[in-house]
Amino acid sequence: MTSDKLIAGLQDKANKLRIHSIRMTTKAASGHPTTCMSAADIVSALFFNTMRYDPHDPSNPNNDRFILSKGHAAPLLYAAYAEAGSIPIEKLDTLREIDSELEGHPTPRFPWGEVATGSLGQGLSIGVGVALNGKYLDELDYRVYVLLGDGESAEGSVWEAAALATHYKLDNLVGIIDVNGLGQSQRTMYNFDIESYRKRFEAFGWHAISIDGHNMSKILAALDEAKGVADKPTMIIAHTLKGKGVSFLEDKDGWHGKPLTEEDVGKAMKELGKPSSDYEFTIASPSEGTVNSATPVSGEIAPPEYQPGEEVATRGGFGTGLAKLGAVNPLVVSLDGDTKNSTYAQEFMEAYPDRFFECFIAEQNMVGTAVGLSSRGKIPFVSTFGAFMTRAFDHIRMSAISDSNIKYVGSHCGISIGQDGPSQMALEDLAMMRAIPNSVVVYPSDAVAAEKLVAEVANHQGIAYIRTSRPKTPLLYPNEEEFPIGGCKVLRSSDNDQATVVAAGITLHESLKAYDALKAEGVNISVIDVYSVKPVDEKTLLESSSKTNNTLICVEDHYYDGGLGDAVLNAVATHGVRVYKMAVKGVPRSGKPEELLEMYGINAECIVRKVKELVG
Amino acid sequence: MTSDKLIAGLQDKANKLRIHSIRMTTKAASGHPTTCMSAADIVSALFFNTMRYDPHDPSNPNNDRFILSKGHAAPLLYAAYAEAGSIPIEKLDTLREIDSELEGHPTPRFPWGEVATGSLGQGLSIGVGVALNGKYLDELDYRVYVLLGDGESAEGSVWEAAALATHYKLDNLVGIIDVNGLGQSQRTMYNFDIESYRKRFEAFGWHAISIDGHNMSKILAALDEAKGVADKPTMIIAHTLKGKGVSFLEDKDGWHGKPLTEEDVGKAMKELGKPSSDYEFTIASPSEGTVNSATPVSGEIAPPEYQPGEEVATRGGFGTGLAKLGAVNPLVVSLDGDTKNSTYAQEFMEAYPDRFFECFIAEQNMVGTAVGLSSRGKIPFVSTFGAFMTRAFDHIRMSAISDSNIKYVGSHCGISIGQDGPSQMALEDLAMMRAIPNSVVVYPSDAVAAEKLVAEVANHQGIAYIRTSRPKTPLLYPNEEEFPIGGCKVLRSSDNDQATVVAAGITLHESLKAYDALKAEGVNISVIDVYSVKPVDEKTLLESSSKTNNTLICVEDHYYDGGLGDAVLNAVATHGVRVYKMAVKGVPRSGKPEELLEMYGINAECIVRKVKELVG
Repeated sequence: MTSDKLIAGLQDKANKLRIHSIRMTTKAASGHPTTCMSAADIVSALFFNTMRYDPHDPSNPNNDRFILSKGHAAPLLYAAYAEAGSIPIEKLDTLREIDSELEGHPTPRFPWGEVATGSLGQGLSIGVGVALNGKYLDELDYRVYVLLGDGESAEGSVWEAAALATHYKLDNLVGIIDVNGLGQSQRTMYNFDIESYRKRFEAFGWHAISIDGHNMSKILAALDEAKGVADKPTMIIAHTLKGKGVSFLEDKDGWHGKPLTEEDVGKAMKELGKPSSDYEFTIASPSEGTVNSATPVSGEIAPPEYQPGEEVATRGGFGTGLAKLGAVNPLVVSLDGDTKNSTYAQEFMEAYPDRFFECFIAEQNMVGTAVGLSSRGKIPFVSTFGAFMTRAFDHIRMSAISDSNIKYVGSHCGISIGQDGPSQMALEDLAMMRAIPNSVVVYPSDAVAAEKLVAEVANHQGIAYIRTSRPKTPLLYPNEEEFPIGGCKVLRSSDNDQATVVAAGITLHESLKAYDALKAEGVNISVIDVYSVKPVDEKTLLESSSKTNNTLICVEDHYYDGGLGDAVLNAVATHGVRVYKMAVKGVPRSGKPEELLEMYGINAECIVRKVKELVG
Repeated sequence: MTSDKLIAGLQDKANKLRIHSIRMTTKAASGHPTTCMSAADIVSALFFNTMRYDPHDPSNPNNDRFILSKGHAAPLLYAAYAEAGSIPIEKLDTLREIDSELEGHPTPRFPWGEVATGSLGQGLSIGVGVALNGKYLDELDYRVYVLLGDGESAEGSVWEAAALATHYKLDNLVGIIDVNGLGQSQRTMYNFDIESYRKRFEAFGWHAISIDGHNMSKILAALDEAKGVADKPTMIIAHTLKGKGVSFLEDKDGWHGKPLTEEDVGKAMKELGKPSSDYEFTIASPSEGTVNSATPVSGEIAPPEYQPGEEVATRGGFGTGLAKLGAVNPLVVSLDGDTKNSTYAQEFMEAYPDRFFECFIAEQNMVGTAVGLSSRGKIPFVSTFGAFMTRAFDHIRMSAISDSNIKYVGSHCGISIGQDGPSQMALEDLAMMRAIPNSVVVYPSDAVAAEKLVAEVANHQGIAYIRTSRPKTPLLYPNEEEFPIGGCKVLRSSDNDQATVVAAGITLHESLKAYDALKAEGVNISVIDVYSVKPVDEKTLLESSSKTNNTLICVEDHYYDGGLGDAVLNAVATHGVRVYKMAVKGVPRSGKPEELLEMYGINAECIVRKVKELVG
């Protein structure tokens, strides 16, 4: 019941949030006060009337969840939680300080942060993941609220999220878009054309409501209306003013990201007035549902069961391994971008359809959705062609800042995919995933390794990447072989090896062929399978180099910079080992795999030639 | 005039295109025949009735342009050009062969390819760029036709392109979306809900028409209707059947990317029948406009004009350099993603507003648009925060396959941006851009270098990346200094240096402070500014190492893997030099720049400590 006292109380709260936002950013001499001010009424309504949550327990699985997609409004978020009693008010003074968890844009260092935002256009995808979890996995009745900016809705990923939310009938997801008409460097594309936003979200299948974003009754009515909408998500398009509440800031150019001077703070405070409501807010408690995810890890993962002589692609090993993992770990979920019949995520889908989410050809949203699922304790495996994983690099980058527990799987690596040509070839994926801080990067060379590494990365806490290949390859390892992260396999060695060849995937098989050819000519080499590209087995690499004239040759189906060769280089960088890299130089082309391996200098013959050239 | 004979002739042509598509892919044992078959009527109409082009001159600037966004329908494209007489029919037999320019997905090796496609959802952005060029730059009246698939319209970048096309009133741009309801691994999200597509494009401001994509009169009528639409682009939503024309393929699951067996080819040919029309097609000639781009490079670029003692950010140097470049080179255009007041692309915008394109917060489309502009001979500088450049990695990857001449500029690199925190910090951008084959990567340390490098990369043919910093820094170089790509600057050296410190950007300034501190303690080091990260100056690095105990210390404001340190490592990899890397380990946080440089171990004190530790 929206009594006048409630309305007045919420408006007063909103004023407090404005005051905090201004003071915090001025104290920090950094931040975005005007962007906070346009959304203050909405946030007040959400935090002090609409959302059901325990302000003293961020981890309660039943809490309604709030995602600040327009992450630069972080001060507003912190102020709301302070007013809710979740953090002390004084903490707000520490905004952006180096030892404060109240960072410039939210990160999980802030206990209520859950996820990191700040790269625009990602929050709605995260919301999709959190909502999917609530509706289909944990089967809890929490609702998910995502606050977006208008400028950020130019990001395509917002529309990917919008489409998928409709497809999955996420009626527990509510977006609010704060249309203040001002971007960073100029007015937004649509300015105050509220109807344009409403029409577009409606066309994408949402229930779309337009309101005056500073009219508290309308805000409450809209949030209430959203609760009654079944089978589709709701988007509330709120017409607002950036800098609302202070005359010299309201809808004025040039104030994005600009804190007020002390003098201006004085003037602003006069206009905002002293908050005076004595309305006693009761934050609604979350529901009492229990999480419908069974205890994880019941039993052991079924081991590989390949027959000697079988030829199986590592992407096949991944598919089998993921399904086997799914059998024992109910927290594992699978997301794929309309490539499941190629990545082999299809096997998991067939076994556990309730834990598989088709994300269609929209990789950015797929990753954002995984971030949301990870924030709710799931272990997402996200698969597509390695080449298309690059589509989501910013989302992957942000997932690291979110400290997400996501396992990325890129198939169809390298030129060895053959005739489809370069647009489909992952040739920079190792560079991309190695750059992610604390990532694990693994590159199995046979199906046994692929299966086992699925389990290994699932056991590892944090971001991991598995690189799989398209072609069928012979088995290299017995079914019982183990593949600890950070290890490698010395497949060939003797006491008089003249060089060490290091490889993984297709080029490992080429290296073994090269070994045979060289041996026939009386030249011995060591061959190492670096299935763990990051972390790489520095100890073994150094040992092998020291026994082989300090000469390492790295061969990879990847561009020259950033891949396996660089991982090896780094391992031996301070030891003066000579490292020679063989990789794909220049943009490749369509052709048969074996022809391409030859043309781009990474097949067995090329390795033989390189060894002979080096050992003289 | 759509006579019956014309209609019959075009249907017959479409049949020929189907026959070619089937035969080509079966011969190659690889490819996507059914995807070609759904679009054959549309392509027939475009190539043999609607488009005005010279089939013997791909470079005629007045040609209507066709972009195959659904790049896996490449056989259809090649077949159309063969039927138009642009290439010999026999050439079609070479599809996907290693020495054929008819690759699995179009690349510029095919003279009519212009750009590479194959990573879905990018073609409409490219079309935006080509259309912008026609309407606003070259002022020619060619029209741009983009053929999209339905599955690919799940990609957010399609909606970014749609929004920008409307914003720029691109009435010379026509999209046709081939709605056959089938994706790769399953039916698409919307299946045959044609109205959903129509409503969405209409909501995004397009003139949107739905038709039966196999009714030739309707196709012609729609294309004709598009010609009369002013001030907005047109999207034709065509209801089609994948595999149209052959009963056992039409709308059947499981045929994506599957060539027919010889036996099935026989059956298919029976159904398709023998093309029998004798209709004589005349392909309409392109207009006779002349390109309205003045002769490039009139005069020399104005030199830097800084005063001694000035402190200027390298992003400021970029802004000034770009405007000065624009003064002499009319082919240079600037695109920015609502960050122009931060990247300083704003200077160019103020001087040359007709050559500046605000792309709003939509980096993927910004890059695709640049690919289109580059294909029409412009030199696009694409700027945003380096962190947000990762949003467009797949588009950047494809721009390399397109052989585009784009200069990417990423500002706000590293932790040195300070309090905004990690979501805004570029810490993996060097890794990303180094991985791009044949890219040039430069990282100026003062405003003089930044200005000069803008001109250097403009003179370089191909993809380049300039990394700029947020903070103001002291000048290091006189206004006349030159910065050839592939060079470096030895800023400090003597005959008894004990180590070489290699850096760029903020850490170069820290290295110079470290030099002073060490010198005061009687320890001499060489200091090198590697402004050219790729290619890196191997010769000078080796010379310096050999004079300094074979000891190189690299210091960078970037994550540990893939950046400046790895560039240096690669240069000395085969020479047994010991390389020590100092970089940002782990996700950083908000804080003052100087505090962050200390916390993450890359400030002057840390460098001093490292040198002392190593020289003993």
